[in-house]
Amino acid sequence: MTANPSPLAKQDQSIQAWSWLADPATCISTNPSGPLAGLSFGVKDVLDVQSMPTRYGAHFPDALPAERDAACVALLRRAGAIVVGKTVTAEFAYAAPGPTRNPLNLDHTPGGSSSGSAAAVAAGMVDFALGTQTGGSMMRPAAFTGILGFKPSFGAVHRSGLFLLCDSLDTIGYFSRDLSVLRRVATVLQGLPEVRVPSAPRIGVLDGKDLGPITPAALAALEQGCQHLEEQGAQLERLPADPQLKELLILQGQIMGYEMARSLLPVWQASPDALRPVTVHAIKQGLDMPAADYHAWQARRRQLEQEWQDRYGHFDALLTPAAPGPAPYGLDSTGSSVLNRPWSLLGWPTLSLPAPGQNSPLPLGLQLIGQPHQDNALLDLASLLSPAAQA
Amino acid sequence: MTANPSPLAKQDQSIQAWSWLADPATCISTNPSGPLAGLSFGVKDVLDVQSMPTRYGAHFPDALPAERDAACVALLRRAGAIVVGKTVTAEFAYAAPGPTRNPLNLDHTPGGSSSGSAAAVAAGMVDFALGTQTGGSMMRPAAFTGILGFKPSFGAVHRSGLFLLCDSLDTIGYFSRDLSVLRRVATVLQGLPEVRVPSAPRIGVLDGKDLGPITPAALAALEQGCQHLEEQGAQLERLPADPQLKELLILQGQIMGYEMARSLLPVWQASPDALRPVTVHAIKQGLDMPAADYHAWQARRRQLEQEWQDRYGHFDALLTPAAPGPAPYGLDSTGSSVLNRPWSLLGWPTLSLPAPGQNSPLPLGLQLIGQPHQDNALLDLASLLSPAAQA
Repeated sequence: MTANPSPLAKQDQSIQAWSWLADPATCISTNPSGPLAGLSFGVKDVLDVQSMPTRYGAHFPDALPAERDAACVALLRRAGAIVVGKTVTAEFAYAAPGPTRNPLNLDHTPGGSSSGSAAAVAAGMVDFALGTQTGGSMMRPAAFTGILGFKPSFGAVHRSGLFLLCDSLDTIGYFSRDLSVLRRVATVLQGLPEVRVPSAPRIGVLDGKDLGPITPAALAALEQGCQHLEEQGAQLERLPADPQLKELLILQGQIMGYEMARSLLPVWQASPDALRPVTVHAIKQGLDMPAADYHAWQARRRQLEQEWQDRYGHFDALLTPAAPGPAPYGLDSTGSSVLNRPWSLLGWPTLSLPAPGQNSPLPLGLQLIGQPHQDNALLDLASLLSPAAQA
Repeated sequence: MTANPSPLAKQDQSIQAWSWLADPATCISTNPSGPLAGLSFGVKDVLDVQSMPTRYGAHFPDALPAERDAACVALLRRAGAIVVGKTVTAEFAYAAPGPTRNPLNLDHTPGGSSSGSAAAVAAGMVDFALGTQTGGSMMRPAAFTGILGFKPSFGAVHRSGLFLLCDSLDTIGYFSRDLSVLRRVATVLQGLPEVRVPSAPRIGVLDGKDLGPITPAALAALEQGCQHLEEQGAQLERLPADPQLKELLILQGQIMGYEMARSLLPVWQASPDALRPVTVHAIKQGLDMPAADYHAWQARRRQLEQEWQDRYGHFDALLTPAAPGPAPYGLDSTGSSVLNRPWSLLGWPTLSLPAPGQNSPLPLGLQLIGQPHQDNALLDLASLLSPAAQA
């Protein structure tokens, strides 16, 4: 598509995916023969884009334009892609939601914290969008809006120019409706070559019930995904409950709480009125956490990373629901991230994609989890799964 | 000491440690009963300090004041310490040196890239200072100026508010003349409790000759350090040459080159005139590196991290010279970092401290290398080593 912000702004009146839209006159590719020429994208408003304000979904009415792009934005522009604007984020990529609505049903949340990026892609306003994930901030909105969301391995995309909420968790990723676009972006941001899909990939299936209640619809979607994968030749193994899943979930929350309090302390000090109560509460809580506990959590995390590698490292991927159900009604919450946070802690790459064979207006997502640093293999596996992915 | 920038500015005319000095009227502790009350500090100019410009040692004459502190600065202020100003850094913490001179001999480099932080501490202008290390940017200046420099384990200090040059390498650390001050800062930034020094710590000694020429003076200083440690009851083991040291050095350079090109690309695009030729050259070179090579380097790095843990994990610490010799004459180069970069790659904590029993005006430093995530044990071991450390 061609970048054309004016119709975008009109279309966005009901969705509110954008916190800033660029002047159409500036939406010109700097490299019309680059590998991403012709593609437009949106940038979650925790990443800097030159000459646009970064507001982090908080109350910064007077924010000045950023002086330069984040590293990932600069790489995409250099490849010819066009930045259309900044997308709505939950406040500092945490819990307080923005105004964005789910394009598939305006009365439902699009998920968060990468709400605007997912909604803008789902509504067809851009070809792709950048998001970030600390807990479940990409997988959940991708699932709720019926698109593809890819969270690379931890460390795979350089974070210069991102507001680092949690240094040991934050990961930059991207959304698209189309697997081929996702791959082109992956090539530019991560230099991932295509690899061959194994003829009979081994996939371990976890229903996620260890992590909390999963709706019957989400379990049925998982079942449909499994059937589809078996038809494509995958070797599925239904895995028993793993009590460490819950431990990973809890550790992720603890480590996130400790780290985000430290990055948000200076925001709170400099701009106390910019933050909503839920964020301030989290800062206070995190500052009270004993450092000795944090060291113990990180040590246990390193242990679990090794154990999970040993226990699940022989699979080409794991498969779970991407969320416990479809996008919840209302905009007060961005939904549950329990199914995503364990993998954010481990740093394994994850891909959310629409479950095959759906006819509900609010889709259900599946989450494919790859081996760490095998991001290309995970993207390839996606081609087996959903009609959207095969586009 | 009390913060008193006016005499500082005068004292700094010859040393040029500071790129920005705060108005003395603003140098007030926000927590006079905090654990760091009464301590003044400087901040390397790649970290944000609220209401001071961040210039990264590059040509940004019109830089606006930062809107908020970096996370580490906010934590230190909250503990009562007083920010005196921003210290000179090599351009974007890479190679192009700033104007800072070595306070021990103005005709010599203070080392880099954390040049101003080390010089300000060595000259007694502040009680401590923040630096960063990607290769050898803390160990080298600490050695050249005769002070203590501590680079924590990778990931130990939250990097929000730091210009991330290399996401997988950059580490925030701190300098002081006094081990007890270093410990107090460690308590605030890392929550490290004191632990007991083992009665007969096992220390592996590497002379570093695998990494390049080491001057006889540096080898003699290492020998004196060894003698002193043995007198203190340490069990020393002279380790044979390890060819992987050189491999670690090379990998560090390759990974640094790839990553820094990506973080500096947007700086170069937005402000081409702000950067000196050596930096622009590195950007161009790094952008040309194939991504597949980078993936292979990182994979090899993970392998070596494991191997080194297996091979050297039974030592309480390793010991090497901190630099191949004393601070070189002149200001055109900040000296060699070959002895520091392998540990930056591994992410192990390192401490540079003056070798004991020196009578040369330009001191020689020793580098103690701790086990990953055992930062407190490393700080404790330091008390065995140098007179400065025992202060």
